[in-house]
Amino acid sequence: MSSFRPTQNLPAAGTAAVHPAEQSLLLRAARGEHTDHPPVWFMRQAGRSLPEYRALRTGTKMLQACRTPELVTEITLQPVRRHGVDAAILFSDIVVPLVAAGLDIEIVPGTGPVVAEPVRSAADVERIRPLDRDDISDIETSVRLLVAELGETPLIGFAGAPYTLASYLVEGGPSKDHARTKALMHAEPDVWNALLDRLAQISATFLTVQLEAGAAAVQLFDSWAGGLSAADYRRFALPHSQAVFAALADTGAPRIHFGVGTGELLDLMRQAGADVVGVDWRTPLDVAAARIGQATPVQGNLDPAILLAGWPVIESEVRRIVAEGRRAPGHIFNLGHGVLPETDPAMLSRVVELVHSL
Amino acid sequence: MSSFRPTQNLPAAGTAAVHPAEQSLLLRAARGEHTDHPPVWFMRQAGRSLPEYRALRTGTKMLQACRTPELVTEITLQPVRRHGVDAAILFSDIVVPLVAAGLDIEIVPGTGPVVAEPVRSAADVERIRPLDRDDISDIETSVRLLVAELGETPLIGFAGAPYTLASYLVEGGPSKDHARTKALMHAEPDVWNALLDRLAQISATFLTVQLEAGAAAVQLFDSWAGGLSAADYRRFALPHSQAVFAALADTGAPRIHFGVGTGELLDLMRQAGADVVGVDWRTPLDVAAARIGQATPVQGNLDPAILLAGWPVIESEVRRIVAEGRRAPGHIFNLGHGVLPETDPAMLSRVVELVHSL
Repeated sequence: MSSFRPTQNLPAAGTAAVHPAEQSLLLRAARGEHTDHPPVWFMRQAGRSLPEYRALRTGTKMLQACRTPELVTEITLQPVRRHGVDAAILFSDIVVPLVAAGLDIEIVPGTGPVVAEPVRSAADVERIRPLDRDDISDIETSVRLLVAELGETPLIGFAGAPYTLASYLVEGGPSKDHARTKALMHAEPDVWNALLDRLAQISATFLTVQLEAGAAAVQLFDSWAGGLSAADYRRFALPHSQAVFAALADTGAPRIHFGVGTGELLDLMRQAGADVVGVDWRTPLDVAAARIGQATPVQGNLDPAILLAGWPVIESEVRRIVAEGRRAPGHIFNLGHGVLPETDPAMLSRVVELVHSL
Repeated sequence: MSSFRPTQNLPAAGTAAVHPAEQSLLLRAARGEHTDHPPVWFMRQAGRSLPEYRALRTGTKMLQACRTPELVTEITLQPVRRHGVDAAILFSDIVVPLVAAGLDIEIVPGTGPVVAEPVRSAADVERIRPLDRDDISDIETSVRLLVAELGETPLIGFAGAPYTLASYLVEGGPSKDHARTKALMHAEPDVWNALLDRLAQISATFLTVQLEAGAAAVQLFDSWAGGLSAADYRRFALPHSQAVFAALADTGAPRIHFGVGTGELLDLMRQAGADVVGVDWRTPLDVAAARIGQATPVQGNLDPAILLAGWPVIESEVRRIVAEGRRAPGHIFNLGHGVLPETDPAMLSRVVELVHSL
């Protein structure tokens, strides 16, 4: 992969104008370069496990918080200050770009995103307009503020993948089995593809704006892809994630791709265009690397539930995962899914310290 | 595997005293014998997708229905009559043997099992008493009534595996992440093992009574095992499932083992003592068979959501799965998880017809 440059017109890598995070642990590991120990960050590190986050969020709804640059900046920085992680990840929600594109979606505490008018027909799809840069000037501001604060610590941009976004729109909210979504993709592939084309444009624009404002890498979350068979993923999800990744290729920024329960999809997720494949705790990192079968770094994969089991257990699991990661062609230490709200933040800090000492 | 005989004292296989289902498609496929087409049954075939079931259940709570032999018999037979499936599965619930052993558990519609006093300490474990045969004389009656009605159609006995039962008891009900369960197993392995020893006794007794009353095979459901890493499954779940299967070995009845999302655990589930390994829709059957790496028949694996996608899609998926199953050392056609309540029963009947025609 070429070095990352925030705009097309900068001089070659190695001069002063390269991205300040260019030599960070995260970017080096994402490029497959040798690092003495893996970089470490945590999915959902910015959020409910931190008392300073809960204090800041009091009285502010989730989507409002995600659109307020001062709050986004502060919330994104909190775990970097507290834990000393090797990357920040933009505080956002998977539905933010959909709301920015005019869809009527509310995040209901305890339930998740609720879509006012579910999308299930060609006419419903027609109503979804493209995301315009002007719709997300607040996100651009948040990223610029963050990059200025973060210096050499990379900021990871964030978006949901087209399949996962579609699942919320089709089901009307969270779902256990995504039965309507699967029925639609199979029964009306034209409607499905038209929907995912639009969602790919929305994801790609959302990430492009973040990269142009200075994010050093991106993670595309396909949270629910693991519910698809490999045949369905290949036919109905992969081409659209590919469109998102392809739109970002020129930036040279590392593209991380993650979904939970995707043990059977890891190589397909690489084929979609990922530079780094995230792995949940179900698949050991060395098994994942072998299944991907290419020189692709992996990210993961401590079971977030282990963080509730006390330090001796955590320590032994972290050591196992770092050892398994050494047998992969590059490793970014992370959890295998998001931080659970009831996690003691002190345990996260100790994990960072331990990974850095190994 | 030796031929199945309902008691130890019968003459050798081939005489009139063998089990009436001995030469059924299901038992032949489970033994890895060649069959012209796979046998077919559906997890949760007895239940909410059938109008005749909903009519019968009106005014009767789930646990009450499971303990009333006339209802169990009728509900278990309904899908056999309607669809012509190759096996009946005992209508029951995973918590029935726990309630029979005196635990205070209620099934709350829309939520699932709710445990009055969650089990989280050595003292809590001490309170769980063994399941006695006398506690489940109603189950024995149900099975005897069923076997008399079913003739050559095999009845599959049913129980939850110790890990899954434990997860309900520790969490106090259904859980997304089983964080308390995982914390307990790691932090207090002695308490964990004592709990699972007791649950293995309960499962084994529940299944033994069913086999002795004439069930021709059993399925041990480890519904949530797929949430465990392979390392955790091996250490904290496998030995206890092994104890259940070992207790049934002398019967010679095929032992099927299934959990959802267990792609990384399939060979470990075989090692636990399964004669047939159930596979969800995420792992193609030929991939599953290769991963198991032994001459073990597989069961599965149509995505239940596909049953909502219209007949042309269903037909093509059934044909794909039967073809993949032919590359395994034996195949029992099934879904990759339970029938969804909104399924059109006519589609299930057509699947049976199609599988039988292939």
